[in-house]
Order: sequence, then C-alpha cells, then structure tokens
Amino acid sequence: MPWWLEPVPEPCERSQKLAQQRQQQLTKPAGSLGRLEDLAIQFAAWQGRELPGLEQIAIRVFAGDHGVVAEGVSAYPQAVTVEMIRNFARGGAAIAVLAREQGSDFAVVNLGTVAEVGDYPAVVDLQLAASTANFCREAAMDDATLEAAMAVGAAQVAEGSQLFIGGEMGIGNTTVAAALTSALLDVSPEQSVGRGTGVDDAGLVRKRTVVERALGLHLPHCTTPLETLRRLGGLEIAALTGAYIAAAQRGIPSVVDGYICGAAALVACRLNSAVRDWLLFSHRSAEPGHRHLLAALEAEPLLDFGMRLGEGSGAALCLPLLRAACTLHCDMATFAEAAVSGPGQEG
Amino acid sequence: MPWWLEPVPEPCERSQKLAQQRQQQLTKPAGSLGRLEDLAIQFAAWQGRELPGLEQIAIRVFAGDHGVVAEGVSAYPQAVTVEMIRNFARGGAAIAVLAREQGSDFAVVNLGTVAEVGDYPAVVDLQLAASTANFCREAAMDDATLEAAMAVGAAQVAEGSQLFIGGEMGIGNTTVAAALTSALLDVSPEQSVGRGTGVDDAGLVRKRTVVERALGLHLPHCTTPLETLRRLGGLEIAALTGAYIAAAQRGIPSVVDGYICGAAALVACRLNSAVRDWLLFSHRSAEPGHRHLLAALEAEPLLDFGMRLGEGSGAALCLPLLRAACTLHCDMATFAEAAVSGPGQEG
Repeated sequence: MPWWLEPVPEPCERSQKLAQQRQQQLTKPAGSLGRLEDLAIQFAAWQGRELPGLEQIAIRVFAGDHGVVAEGVSAYPQAVTVEMIRNFARGGAAIAVLAREQGSDFAVVNLGTVAEVGDYPAVVDLQLAASTANFCREAAMDDATLEAAMAVGAAQVAEGSQLFIGGEMGIGNTTVAAALTSALLDVSPEQSVGRGTGVDDAGLVRKRTVVERALGLHLPHCTTPLETLRRLGGLEIAALTGAYIAAAQRGIPSVVDGYICGAAALVACRLNSAVRDWLLFSHRSAEPGHRHLLAALEAEPLLDFGMRLGEGSGAALCLPLLRAACTLHCDMATFAEAAVSGPGQEG
Repeated sequence: MPWWLEPVPEPCERSQKLAQQRQQQLTKPAGSLGRLEDLAIQFAAWQGRELPGLEQIAIRVFAGDHGVVAEGVSAYPQAVTVEMIRNFARGGAAIAVLAREQGSDFAVVNLGTVAEVGDYPAVVDLQLAASTANFCREAAMDDATLEAAMAVGAAQVAEGSQLFIGGEMGIGNTTVAAALTSALLDVSPEQSVGRGTGVDDAGLVRKRTVVERALGLHLPHCTTPLETLRRLGGLEIAALTGAYIAAAQRGIPSVVDGYICGAAALVACRLNSAVRDWLLFSHRSAEPGHRHLLAALEAEPLLDFGMRLGEGSGAALCLPLLRAACTLHCDMATFAEAAVSGPGQEG
C-alpha cells in the first residue's frame, strides 16, 4: 500500500467532549463566542487534551515552475518564481513578513525551477525537475517525479508540530489549479479559470482555452485522483498534497490557504478521505474557481477579505485567530472560579 | 456649541495616496491582499503617514445597569453586571484575556451599578447613578446624567492612542440596543430584538413587548438623536457614544464591536456625521438587529464568526488582523528592492 493510503487517526472524541463541557462553564453566555468556541473544541480533539495550545507552527512554501507558462497564461514572466523564492528567503514577501510576525518556523522548499535560485539558508533547493511539462502537450509529470514531489511535502511535516501551514509559489499555477478543479469536480473552465495574478481579458480567454485543451487531452485518462494530479498538477501542488496527507497521518492539523492549496487539499482528500478531518480553511479566495473547491470540501473558510495572493498568506493571517480561540478556551475563568451567577440564578 | 458637535478632522488624503502608491509597488499582484491593503491605506490616512503602526491601543469596557431589567428581559440576574466587572478586573473574562494577549492598555469604567463593585485597580468606579430608570415607565436618564456619561467616555480616550476599542457590560443592554435601533432606524421590535444572552421563546416575546411599550411611550418625543439616547439608552452606551465622538475629534480611529457598541456608534454618527470616517467595524453579530445598524452605517465588518458576547471581544479579536495589515504594508519589499520583475517585464 502506498504511504498516502496509510490510515489517518481520528481526532480524540473524549477531549472534544471535555472541551465542549469546559466551554459551557466559561464566563460567557453559552455559544456567544461563536466560531471561536468551535475552533477551540476542534483543537482539543486534534491535540487530545482538554486545553489545547498553539506554539509549534510550521509554515512551508513549496515552489515550482510550470511548463504551461509557455502558453502565455500569466501576467508575470516565469523568472518571478525564482525571484520570489529569493524574496521569501530575504523576508520581503508577504508570507515571510507574516511568519516573522507570528514567530513561526518558516522555510521555502524549491521543487524545481527553470532558473537557479542560488544559496539561501531558508531555502531547501531540491530541483526534482526544471519544471513540469506543458500539459497542453503531455502529462505534467511522470510517475517518479510525482511520487518524489509528494514525498518531499510529507517530509516537511515535522512530528511535534501543532499546526501545519502550506503555501505555494509558481508562476502559472492558478491555471494548474483551474485544470485540476475542472477535472476533479466536472466544472467548466468558465467556472474554474480566473484572472490569477491579473491577466487582462485576452489573457483570461487564453487561460480558458488552455484549460479546455488540457482537459481534452487528459480527461479520458484521469481515472484516479493520482493520475489527475500527475497529468494536470504541479510540483508544488503535489508536495502540498503529500504534506496534507502526512500531516493528518501524524495527527497534525493543517490550515489550507486559497485556490492552489485548495486544489491540493481536494486531491489529498480524494486520495485519503480521512484527511478532511484534519483540515481548516483560511479564507475565501477572490479567484472564482475557489468556491467550487470549498463546496466540494464542505469547507467554511474563516475570512472573506478578497485575497488572492497565495504563498500561504491567508492561512498565516488566521494564526492569531486560532491562537485567540485556544487562549480564550484555556485562560477564561469558569462561572465557579469567578463567582459569576449563571442564567436564572439569583445573583 | 456642545463639545460633541466640535469638528472632526479629515483623514490625511496625501498619506492615503502615498500608501496607495506604496501598495502598488509591493512584491505581490496589485490588489491581491484585498481588504488588508484597504486597511493599511486607511491607517495611513488616519495617522497622516505613509507607514502606519499599531502599538498604542486602548481598550475600555464601560459598564452600567439598566432599569428595564425589572421587566424580566434577561436570562441572567442583574448582579452579573458587577460580577463580570470583577471578572474583567481579575483577568478571567474574554475581553481581559484578549487584551492581555494583545498587550493592550485595558481598563473597566463603571458608570453605575445597583450593587457595589469593591476595590480593583483596573476598575474606574464612578457610580453616576445606581442604574438607568426603567424606560418602560420614564426616560432612562436625565440630561445631566446623560451628559456626564458621555463626558466619561470622552475622557477615557487618551491623546496619542493609535486605536480605541470600546466594550460594554450591562445585563439587559441588548434590549436597550434594540430600543435605540428601532427608534433611530424605524425598524420593528421583531427586527431589532434578539435573544441576547440567551432568553427562551417566552423571554423573546417579553423583550419585544418591552421595546414596543418603550417606543410607544418615548418615540413621539425622540426628535433628536440626543433625546433618543437619553430616553432609551444606557449609561455605558452614552459613554461609548461620547468616546467614539471624542476619539474621532482627536484623530483616533475606533473599532466598533457588536450590537450594543453599534447602537452607540449610530448615535455618535447621528450627532456628528464626520465621526463615521474614523470607525471600523469588527464583526457581524449573531444578534439579528445588528444587520440594520451595519446597513445604516454602510459598514462591512471584518469577521462573521457568529459572535454575540459583547465586552469589545469582537473588536479586540480583530487587532492582529489590523496589525498584520500595517506590518505587511511597512515591511514587505517593493519590486525594486527585491529585484522581482513586474507584470509583462522580461524576467
């Protein structure tokens, strides 16, 4: 059995119940902290303890180039993938700023880019391939590369983490996410393709045509989620897929970022359905295709800020909200501790 | 001219433009950080500098008792107002936990409660009155008490703050917020009254009837927003109204919490319309009447977490999001600094 089919543990029901009971005793009307209560209870179940904490957080940005960029699907040149890897490493990109602000363990993992990155301590430079193949002409990856990329993702999830956040960088990867979304959910390119980093009207038509062509070539062969990922995916998306599965297998929840990460999460859940129990979703992306992924995953994201940057930036932005949920749960006084009367009691 | 009519400064247009230009130069597709970009630009305009910061944050919880509690409108006994003031002071309540986590300057201001609070360093104990009068029978406050409560709120806004967060505590105050909402926005008690801390079906009917009676008694005399506040408001709501106005007059933005704070914000904007330029709204409350306040104030809150606790807890929860917006704006590299190619450039 391949490793990604290995079982995923169930969140701890006993800790979940204890946390639910605790929430009823905290000095507030029952349910009045809304989603924050649900989150605290969820983390209790994930961590197997009534009082969960959120100190050990790992953020990994996976990067890779895409052969389909040859079709003119991005507003930015392909060199930006590598330029942004350097910007992550130097701390100037959004995800690097957020990781620093949150005190998270942060690294960039380069799976394969056309240009060379150079030496940066925060970059794990693997170069499994110079890029994927152009999926308008052939499968994006061969079996060996796909499995290697998934294994890279899995290896980046450290035992002992309390939360995993994956991000991605790869010029052209909204086109790839759209192809995966269309293939896996049977939605048209009109619904799955958006403007990504900001293509104009002509670029949008070009992206849709590209996805249309890719679906025409590959869809008849996409009989399994793994084959769909191999033919229409990307190196960084395969790594994310592997990471989400491995995190769940190790009992570590992940916060799934926007459109590209969402596509990887869908593949992960299609490969191993129990992974879904270990996923949170950060934000509703401005990319129109994202709504289809969220619906398929029955996911209600935390934020709706019109974000569409990727990098894991939406997921990292949610960290303080998750921390607040846990801190309130652990540090608020109970009615008994604070000598506060409950409903209907005489004061 | 009463102090609340004194002029409110305009946010700085020049800093706003500089911040907008900076956002275009940061290493991300234009607009891809969505609402975070708008927030950073807004803080730039408020602080009159291209690179805004958020270090000096004041959280004040205003507390007061309500005569209308005699009508049986709350699931909790009136003593809970004072018990919760003590819980704020000892650090066990939600807002106290959040204020501590955020490193904010935090204090509780008691405007008047039926029971005595006792000595707590974090409590400013003023006791303007034991409570408001029962507005089913008479006006909640006289002119002098109303003005004193507004002045207390104003005095709590310190020059030099970069952000003001007001919270409230007062058993019965969702009924008061509903009465104000119905009176100011001409919406029925069916639309303005919710379950508050969690009344049952009979309690909900009772709350609606109480608001109906209060409107019948006072509405003909509610010819100005100030008179509406005096007849149907509360001590803590009057203090919040004063605080929002004074903050705006001093060039300090406020984050408005949920239903009760929203009612105070509406009164503040009706008294001095320029106050609106200095308000942010944290979350969409689960209290049904809140949507009418948000619509009237043309406010799009940041979070939709089903919260209905009050205390300023939703506003405090938003602090890290606002900080992240400013930090990204200030600390991200520009395309030039990071040597990242822009759209359409050769890489």
